[in-house]
Amino acid sequence: MSDTDLEAPEPIAEVEAAEPSHDEDNRLTRDFVDTVVEHVEQDENEEARALVRPLHPADIADLFELAPADARAPLASALAELLDGDVLAEMNDWVRDEVLQALSARQVAALATELDTDDAVAIIEDMDIEDQREVLRALDPDDRAAIEEALSYPEESAGRLMQRDLIAVPEHWTVGDVLDYLRRNEDLTTDFWEIYVTDHTHHPVGTCKLSWVLRTPRSIAIADVMQREQTLIPVDMDQEEVALRFQKYALISAAVVDAAGRLVGMITVDDVVHIIQQEAGEDILAMSGAGDGDINEPLPRTIRSRMIWLLINLGTAILAASVIGAFSGAIEKLVALSALMTIVSGMGGNAATQTMAVTVRALATNQLTSSNTWRMIGREWWISVANGIGLGALMTLGCQLYYHDLGLSAILFAAMIINSINAGLAGVLIPLGLEKLKVDPAVTSTVFVTTMTDCMGFFALLGLATAFNVS
Amino acid sequence: MSDTDLEAPEPIAEVEAAEPSHDEDNRLTRDFVDTVVEHVEQDENEEARALVRPLHPADIADLFELAPADARAPLASALAELLDGDVLAEMNDWVRDEVLQALSARQVAALATELDTDDAVAIIEDMDIEDQREVLRALDPDDRAAIEEALSYPEESAGRLMQRDLIAVPEHWTVGDVLDYLRRNEDLTTDFWEIYVTDHTHHPVGTCKLSWVLRTPRSIAIADVMQREQTLIPVDMDQEEVALRFQKYALISAAVVDAAGRLVGMITVDDVVHIIQQEAGEDILAMSGAGDGDINEPLPRTIRSRMIWLLINLGTAILAASVIGAFSGAIEKLVALSALMTIVSGMGGNAATQTMAVTVRALATNQLTSSNTWRMIGREWWISVANGIGLGALMTLGCQLYYHDLGLSAILFAAMIINSINAGLAGVLIPLGLEKLKVDPAVTSTVFVTTMTDCMGFFALLGLATAFNVS
Repeated sequence: MSDTDLEAPEPIAEVEAAEPSHDEDNRLTRDFVDTVVEHVEQDENEEARALVRPLHPADIADLFELAPADARAPLASALAELLDGDVLAEMNDWVRDEVLQALSARQVAALATELDTDDAVAIIEDMDIEDQREVLRALDPDDRAAIEEALSYPEESAGRLMQRDLIAVPEHWTVGDVLDYLRRNEDLTTDFWEIYVTDHTHHPVGTCKLSWVLRTPRSIAIADVMQREQTLIPVDMDQEEVALRFQKYALISAAVVDAAGRLVGMITVDDVVHIIQQEAGEDILAMSGAGDGDINEPLPRTIRSRMIWLLINLGTAILAASVIGAFSGAIEKLVALSALMTIVSGMGGNAATQTMAVTVRALATNQLTSSNTWRMIGREWWISVANGIGLGALMTLGCQLYYHDLGLSAILFAAMIINSINAGLAGVLIPLGLEKLKVDPAVTSTVFVTTMTDCMGFFALLGLATAFNVS
Repeated sequence: MSDTDLEAPEPIAEVEAAEPSHDEDNRLTRDFVDTVVEHVEQDENEEARALVRPLHPADIADLFELAPADARAPLASALAELLDGDVLAEMNDWVRDEVLQALSARQVAALATELDTDDAVAIIEDMDIEDQREVLRALDPDDRAAIEEALSYPEESAGRLMQRDLIAVPEHWTVGDVLDYLRRNEDLTTDFWEIYVTDHTHHPVGTCKLSWVLRTPRSIAIADVMQREQTLIPVDMDQEEVALRFQKYALISAAVVDAAGRLVGMITVDDVVHIIQQEAGEDILAMSGAGDGDINEPLPRTIRSRMIWLLINLGTAILAASVIGAFSGAIEKLVALSALMTIVSGMGGNAATQTMAVTVRALATNQLTSSNTWRMIGREWWISVANGIGLGALMTLGCQLYYHDLGLSAILFAAMIINSINAGLAGVLIPLGLEKLKVDPAVTSTVFVTTMTDCMGFFALLGLATAFNVS
């Protein structure tokens, strides 16, 4: 047995054990954040930098997000040398704004220069027009042109998302030509996973995975290795649509083409991953009226956006309450109705929320199309009938045992079934209708659906009580 | 000008125009789905296959999902030769079950053989134990061992997600050695984007992007090109955590290591993209109690899972209604309370839903940690105070104008503020508390939060009315 074999192996626990800066879920610990902030407060900037230097850019960005708002500017000054473009690109928009305020336009421009176009655009697009101009002026002409062109595309479009640095080679080259080209041109990007093959008019004709380039002898033509079927992204495509294509076809990167079909850029999956996360998470925030739901958004802005939603809901709540007002005679005669009506409307609201969430997600993920719309409506119909009968029977039994009033129990049963069906149909038809009208169903469905279930819940129970004179 | 220059350019519209089989959102059209199904119904299988053959595997999977349930088995028989592993891997679990029923275990095994371990596992893990055994028996021993090992890891863990085919090279190799190895070994996978460098104990010591391999002269040692900092994924890590790592560090692939730190597999970003989408979308379905929210789930199963949620909610609705019952004297005296109480409880519910959605998302994306918990609670406190005062004042003004009853207006104002603060605190504290107790806040928060806002809404208004004897 040789000496080397006797050496102690590296401690294997290292792989899994959280570093002192991170908790078991890979988040920065509170102690770590506090320690860094305290060092900066006590002007011990070198100590702070020593702690932060080993962190990944994404973790440095997290540090700024987790630090108290008033500590961010001093932190930015103290850690300025560690604040590179990668850190800024990972940072929450609002927090980045605060950090950029602490830096000069020239510093920001220097940061923007080292970034891919897409990341530079992400940083610059959120700035005020004036700050934007100042940063653009400080950039060198090539970078400025690239960023200005990207900014000319609509927000949240492929044009904003793409990077312009990519590897495109003519179709008549061999694998050897490609290898030599890559080795000899040191200023080419290293951030690519596929090579695009173009014809003489700069139209993409095929895509070649790097693994294929590596596995193929030098003499073979690149056109014989490339994949001719490719997903081309029009430069004005919405980013949500881009994300769905990446997901559906399991893409790593995709060529972006202009209106004339010429290759103008490339989108890589790491940029799309953020969008998928964001778009999928947006639905829940939109449905609950929480705006962007960004916990770093300035408080007055958050209050305003939530208040607007609550005001709309106040209107619908008053509408529903006016239904009760119209039947106050029935409640005066039988006050038990005032308790029972909240159960009928509440259960309708819960059932409708289930249906609505399923419909909104199915629409957002392109699973619900005109081919299966009727099947979906049919499903929700049967679910709501089953729920209405099941829960209605249970409620009715309870009502009869408690109030010993057959008339009341009978109208409660009927009202539960009516509102369950109303809830199921509203939950599926309203999002579908809004989608047809090109309105985002996630944002608007909730208001309409809960109005329907509240009004119908009150109307069904109180209306039946009045019609059959239950008292 | 040469002849070739005069040739008409390719029609550029092609890039963007939807193929006849797809609508403008890249979904299969209803006409296309109907036509294929009709061909199969009329035993014109060759025509059906001709239509389907040009489709991408992901689109063939969609075709099965969009076809009516009773058409899927005949469709599977007719299109059997087009049903490869890629198609099955893309297919919804429930639809795949139906399709697999139509195939023999041997056919399924043949499909599983051509897949990466992760895709094969995804297909096999959903089958009955008996069917699983039959398929495993039909596999060749190597594949069987690989899949059985993967199945031995917990569900939704990195071990299930990883593929075992990867490129690992010793650290003493040069770039030239790597190129020769890749070119000479034809049975190596082509599905890789990075190369892992390992020491003699098979511990990963670095990762090398393919673009670096391509850009580097043959004589350079791979250890000089590789990146030593790497994100290693423990084989038992939960897939949600894996997805968060990929997103945070913008990974394309990552090495998976066993408890001893040895390289055992690789996860690529295309597998993670599905998980990100799914986990982010799950929250909205969980919060609304819609179970998996899978529109292809068998109806009885869906009814059962939704009914259970509604039953829990029925309990809480009865609890809230019992608060009303306790104060029926107040309502008898002043029936207007029965309308107003629904507004107080409803507005509390809406405000709480906003806060809850923001909290649940912030927890799910690791943005809310112990460092900023108090800041978050403080934010929601101020938001709820502002909303309570703003909306309360508006309601009170309306109430006064309508009912001309100062006492009633005053208690309404107080009740609105009380329930708004109750809603804000419940919306943030309940998810935080559940997270601390290791309970998924998305699944359970809604029940507790709406119970709090309903009960408190009724109690605040009716209790104040009773206490101050408003009538």
